[in-house]
Order: sequence, then structure tokens, then C-alpha cells
Amino acid sequence: MESLAMWSKTSATELLQISYPIIQAPMAGGVTTPELVAAVSQNGGLGSLGAGYLKPEQIRHAIRNIRERTDQPFAVNLFVPEEVTKSEKSLEKMNKYLFPIRSKLGSSTDLLLEPSAFKEQIEVLIDEKIPIFSFTFGIPEEKILQRLRASGIITIGTATTVEEAICLEQSGVHMVIAQGSEAGGHRGTFIGNEKDSLIGSIVLIPTIAAGGIMDARGILASLILGASAVQMGTAFIPTQESGAHPLYKETLLNSIETDTVITKKITGKAVRALKNELIQTLEEYDEIIPAYPLQHMLTQGIRQAAAKQANPAWMSMWSGQGTRLCKEQTVQSMMKALINEIDQLKPLFL
Amino acid sequence: MESLAMWSKTSATELLQISYPIIQAPMAGGVTTPELVAAVSQNGGLGSLGAGYLKPEQIRHAIRNIRERTDQPFAVNLFVPEEVTKSEKSLEKMNKYLFPIRSKLGSSTDLLLEPSAFKEQIEVLIDEKIPIFSFTFGIPEEKILQRLRASGIITIGTATTVEEAICLEQSGVHMVIAQGSEAGGHRGTFIGNEKDSLIGSIVLIPTIAAGGIMDARGILASLILGASAVQMGTAFIPTQESGAHPLYKETLLNSIETDTVITKKITGKAVRALKNELIQTLEEYDEIIPAYPLQHMLTQGIRQAAAKQANPAWMSMWSGQGTRLCKEQTVQSMMKALINEIDQLKPLFL
Repeated sequence: MESLAMWSKTSATELLQISYPIIQAPMAGGVTTPELVAAVSQNGGLGSLGAGYLKPEQIRHAIRNIRERTDQPFAVNLFVPEEVTKSEKSLEKMNKYLFPIRSKLGSSTDLLLEPSAFKEQIEVLIDEKIPIFSFTFGIPEEKILQRLRASGIITIGTATTVEEAICLEQSGVHMVIAQGSEAGGHRGTFIGNEKDSLIGSIVLIPTIAAGGIMDARGILASLILGASAVQMGTAFIPTQESGAHPLYKETLLNSIETDTVITKKITGKAVRALKNELIQTLEEYDEIIPAYPLQHMLTQGIRQAAAKQANPAWMSMWSGQGTRLCKEQTVQSMMKALINEIDQLKPLFL
Repeated sequence: MESLAMWSKTSATELLQISYPIIQAPMAGGVTTPELVAAVSQNGGLGSLGAGYLKPEQIRHAIRNIRERTDQPFAVNLFVPEEVTKSEKSLEKMNKYLFPIRSKLGSSTDLLLEPSAFKEQIEVLIDEKIPIFSFTFGIPEEKILQRLRASGIITIGTATTVEEAICLEQSGVHMVIAQGSEAGGHRGTFIGNEKDSLIGSIVLIPTIAAGGIMDARGILASLILGASAVQMGTAFIPTQESGAHPLYKETLLNSIETDTVITKKITGKAVRALKNELIQTLEEYDEIIPAYPLQHMLTQGIRQAAAKQANPAWMSMWSGQGTRLCKEQTVQSMMKALINEIDQLKPLFL
């Protein structure tokens, strides 16, 4: 076990070259603005750009924007694409079901099925020589991991079960994020069904704890349980630098843990989100939901139209269970408060 | 926050008059033998008798047996009975469904619907002047809690959500157990649906953390998160003093976290258990399951017959998610190892 005497010195801080073992989660969909990512890195943590839904050139632009703001390390996160058997029948049915909702919100009824740009996204990361690459929803093929390593890029995979963590370790990644069931947003599950599960001290590479960590106590408890760093998402959503919709921030600040729910019906993949009319309506749909990313694409227009109309009832608002501990603040004040609190808690262990 | 400097001195150890903040969970169904309860208390923790399924006179006998073995404090746990609307239709259907299974295992087909003996069980606890009373599945009526308090009995309720914890606090209990979703056995949920949920530092009475705690790291992490004590169940199942069936112990020792599942179909109430043919078969049943305790009574004969025939495929084997950390040992060696490990971990915080 790593000593907590210097809680800021772990195998993770050494490997990632950061001052504190605090990683801001890569929240795709506009939350992780370059301002947010850079502010976290600039304050001694590791900012992460959630680039899964960005086009290659948008990623390049965001990376350069981050670099203008900080010279500290940061991570870029991508979604590993999955084989999708396009079931025309369920697509058609869902499309029909969504029609009245689309009409109501004035969202386009065009069904935009974009192919994965994963390979092109990877090229940008290598081309821009980013320091750290994290990924979710699977493991990139061996050739890609080799190229990333050859470019000196640190790789971090995401696991929700021990089995997934072991597969990641065997793939040669440098670190693994252990995503607990409290986490907001998509479950990173890629083997079998998503089920809450514990990743103990089974893997030998440094583990990053994620899910429900919101304060100094959560950070220290995770380090004691053997984590080498923590990844926090929900706590960063209401910060000033976050790109979350103002009504998403407001809803989150007024929520409690029972306001979140895990649903597969928004995107076709299990995601923890704040309950609203969108979830309530989709949960009533009894037929087979098209698999991710098809369902994600099918409901995207509705969610975007709702955001434009400032209508949180139909927006997608991912959130972990630790909502009660959310605060409206700048990244700098959040990071400073966390570090101070940990230093204040430490004497209690003496 | 209570200082961890002397980790063994918390508001819980003071209130319960125990040496270490380690509570053995009250596992009903024969696991918590008087030998197990007394051994835990004798080694500085708090042993708990899971008396929910015991007849009043069996409880009296067990309490006296515990007292012959230790003069240290111990707890007795009961299930608060719930209003059951007996749906004859679902009862009949389930009874019919179970018939071939009963025949195969040679279990009686008599449907034994026993009324709750809760009030008579409480009388025994007061009569025997037990030191600590813990309860699950609800809150006893005010009059009963008043009588227990008047008899000098410390009361501990079980919550799975913040809402339940607050209700318990308002009922005047001395402490509340916060049962996490990792926990084995029945979810203690009594308000709304069972959903994994976090109990923060919301309640002002001492909180006992439960669920997935298996070792020194888990104990320290729980104390840092604000718990005043921990309750451990699964770790005690394979101990020498436990009354668990030898094949239940063996199955548990060979299991990993993904071998457990939460199901409502064995007893009518959500319970985390080791997967086997019993669960697999009942999960296939699509119709409405009779509510707890009706379904519990309906399947009890099958589970008991399976235990007699040493057939773990049809036994009920509750278990938390921390199975990998289970060891075959005596209670004394387990308690001593935990206390030593914590003392060894402590210098790392210096």
C-alpha cells in the first residue's frame, strides 16, 4: 500500500506527472470545455476532455485551446466503437414512437446515423502528441494501443468489473479506472451485462476509483481502499468553467441521490441520470430499444432541441449519486478547498 | 469528525460499550449461532443474533446460551412485520408452480402461513433485558420503542436510503445502520422501492456502515467517510462458529463478486444471494410473486429440504459482494487479524 503520509504522492501522480491524485472525469456532450479541463490541470489535478462525440477537427481545436491555457498534463477520452447489428425493425418502431415527441419539441425528424470516427479521432490525438489518453466502452485494437504507446502517450482504460479490469491490464494499459455503480453518466461496461461490481486489489497496475466521490473524505477513503487516484465527475458539472447547460447545473444543485436513476432507454446503454419527463416517457416503451449508439442518435435531436428551448424536462442530464455535495464554484476554489480539507483531515489520523 | 487516532474509540463503541467498532451482522436463518455471537462479543466486537425467524422461546434459549458464553454486550435483531395483502391468486399460482420442485426434492407441500410473532418476540427481549436491539424492514410502533428505551435497551434501525435514515432518527433510535447495495441478504428497504442509495452525513445520530466491508481497509475507509462503526456479515459466514451449512461455506469460499445477484423471487423481498438453480428457476417465473413473507414461506420448505439433502443448488445462500476476501477461520483469529491489520495500516497515515 502506498503511504498516505504524503497523500499527494502516489504511483498515479508520478505516472501522470500531476500534483494531486484528482482526475476530472471526461464528461462528453459539452460539459468538459477546454476552460474546465485547463483549470483542473492548472490547479494540480488532471483535466480530461470528453471527446467521444467530437469530430476529429473539433478535438484538434479543443486540444490546442487547452494548451493555450495550461502547460500541465491533461487527458483526452474517446469511446471505443462497438459492433452494432442494425435492427431495422426496432429502429423503425422507435423512430415512430419518438415522432410525436419530436413534433412537440420541433426537433428534426431526420435520422442521422453517423459512422464511428474513432480511427480519425485517434490520429488527431497522436498527431497532437497528447500526454494522456483514456477510453471507455471497450478496448481499442492492439495495433492502436501499440501506436499510442510508441508515441509516448499514457493509456487509461475504464472497467466496471474485475473481469474487465484484468482484460485491460492484459492489454497493456498503464492504469485502470474502476467505475462504481454510484457514478453518473454511462456505465463503462463492455463484457456481459452491466451490474454493480467491486474491483479489489486484483489488478497490479494503478487503479483510479470513480463513482460517488465528491469530497475530501471520499478521496481519502478511496486512497485507503487502495486506489492510486480518484476520478470525479458530478462535482465538476456545476463549476463556473463547465459547459453544462445552466438549467442542468441548477437542476443538479437542487437534487438528491434518489433523483438519479440508471436507465438504458435514453442511449441504448446503461447511464445514470437525473429523472425527468424524457426518462419517464422512454421507460414506458416496452419494446426492444435499439442498441447504442443507435438509440443515442435517435433521441439526440430531442435532447438538443430541449436544451435550446431551455426545457430540462427533455434534456439528458447525467449525474452520479453524490448530488447533495454539489456546489456552484470555480474550479480553482473547488480544488483548493479539497486539498485544504484533506490536509485538515490528516491530523485526525495521527 | 471523530478522531481516528484512537480508531477504537468512537461514539458507537462508547454507546455500545464495546472495544472495537466492529459489529457482526444479524444473519437470520441459522448462521448466527450463540457460539458465533458470543465469540464476536468476547473478542471485543458486537455479536448479533439474527432472531427474525426464531420463535419467542427459541430466542430466550439463545439469549441465555449467549450469556453463558460471554458477559460482554450483544445485540438481538428482529424483522418488523409488514401489512400483507394476501393475494390468493398469486399464492395459488406460485404454489402450483413450485409443486414439481417440491416433489423432486421431497419437500412437504403444506403451505405454512405463520402469523408474525413480533410482539411476543419483543416481550422476550424486554423480559431478558438484552443490552442492544437492532431491527430491519421498518420501524416498530412508538409504544414498543418507548418500552424498549424505558428498559434501558439501546435501539438500532436499518436504512437503505437517506429518507429512511431520517425517519429512523426521528423515531428516536440511538443509531442507524446504513446498508449499502453491496450487502448480502435482504435489503432493509421499507420506504418506496429498493434502490442503491447513499446515506451521507445527513443524520446526526451515529451511523453504522454496512455492505461489502470485509477487511481492515474497508473498516478504516468507512470510519473516514464518517461511520461510527461497521457491520460485517459475509466475512463471518465461513467462520468455524457460524451455523451456515458446510456447503454454503464452501460455495462462498469459491465465489467471486459476480456470483452474487439481487433477486426478489426467493422471498418476495430484494435479497443479495449466491446464484444457483433455485434463483435461476424462480427468475424464469414471469407472473406476480407473492409479497414477503408469503413467498419466503412458500419457498422455505424447498430450501430446507435442499439443505438436509446437502444440495446447494436449491439452498438459499445470502452473500455480499466481497466474497473474494472470505476466509475459513475462527472468530478469534478473524477479529485479531482485523485489529492487527488496522494497527499496521495506521502508521501509513502519519
